[in-house]
Amino acid sequence: MQTRLRVRRHPERGVYEREPMYAILDEGMIAHVGFIDAESPVVIPTAYGRDGDHIYLHGSAVALWCKRMSEGIPVCATVTLTDGLVLARSTFKHSMNYRSVMIYGNAELVRNIDEKLHGLECIVEHLVPGRSREARSPNENELAATSVLKLSLENASAKVRSGGPLDDRDDFERLVWAGVLPLRPAYGPPIPDAAVPPIVGVPEYVLTYKR
Amino acid sequence: MQTRLRVRRHPERGVYEREPMYAILDEGMIAHVGFIDAESPVVIPTAYGRDGDHIYLHGSAVALWCKRMSEGIPVCATVTLTDGLVLARSTFKHSMNYRSVMIYGNAELVRNIDEKLHGLECIVEHLVPGRSREARSPNENELAATSVLKLSLENASAKVRSGGPLDDRDDFERLVWAGVLPLRPAYGPPIPDAAVPPIVGVPEYVLTYKR
Repeated sequence: MQTRLRVRRHPERGVYEREPMYAILDEGMIAHVGFIDAESPVVIPTAYGRDGDHIYLHGSAVALWCKRMSEGIPVCATVTLTDGLVLARSTFKHSMNYRSVMIYGNAELVRNIDEKLHGLECIVEHLVPGRSREARSPNENELAATSVLKLSLENASAKVRSGGPLDDRDDFERLVWAGVLPLRPAYGPPIPDAAVPPIVGVPEYVLTYKR
Repeated sequence: MQTRLRVRRHPERGVYEREPMYAILDEGMIAHVGFIDAESPVVIPTAYGRDGDHIYLHGSAVALWCKRMSEGIPVCATVTLTDGLVLARSTFKHSMNYRSVMIYGNAELVRNIDEKLHGLECIVEHLVPGRSREARSPNENELAATSVLKLSLENASAKVRSGGPLDDRDDFERLVWAGVLPLRPAYGPPIPDAAVPPIVGVPEYVLTYKR
């Protein structure tokens, strides 16, 4: 494992096994992808989809970040889930419960048409499982307008903080509330597009959506 | 305005006014901060607090990212709020509703003790308004162990997507549901730390928490 993957601050929070790392990536919706452009870092929020030990990213073929990343430059993609606010007796011990994955690597432009279609399907299915069976697949022009990038999870690690505040003993006597305020995403109700024919109901995978 | 701040893809989504940009930053909890280390981009999720036209970041004084950023290297901090999944008739037109802010700049290490305390209070109040009145302020050792960094919003811009799917006319006849599945954060119920004395109730600002 690369040295930089080792969690240095709070090493007890480091997670290096594949399955818990995959679980975080599967629950997340957005990766913040960093790359270098003109000697400056750039951080772009983007959707992704996981397939085995890599993720797919996509974007407009003319977007700067897609063009730059297609060149195989080093990237760092970070996915963060926030689970709760941790309120301690001292401001210093305040924290957040979170699960994050950092992926280092060089993105690879997917040129094979079948894999490109597969990568796009992965992204749609990652965000809305079941959707790719109903929505129209990309046509030739749409495919040409889209870049699909592949990033290996070989150099990835996760960091997880959970549980309550870790106050100093000396602060325990303070008459101040301490604990965790959980955060979780909520979904719906769905807002139908005005042009959807009345005969078309809201699909089950939308009504029961959760991550 | 710097050229790189101009939103190129979907220019109609670009927002350059201060107030809507501040509103996004005030609603967000986590910034993904990118910097360059050993010729590779690194993207770190971290809490922040806004004060006027800059944000404060903090971290362990011995953390790599704090040490690197204290040197005044270029950074890019991105805050993203996800508001909904946009389900279109074609997979190509699928999208997300989101509001994001990208901040470019060089972070500055805060050395003045009063400003350092102020910056830390900004971060606590940003995450849990009202909290700094109750929790113990940092002592000398805690302050020494923490780096506070300041990042100007001078070079920042926002990008916002809202509304329903923008399908091609040709796809309107398809009998497939289309619309938006809204996403919003939910909070609670609070989980008290086991050692909180029974006399201490859950504060109002925790019970009624929302962003």
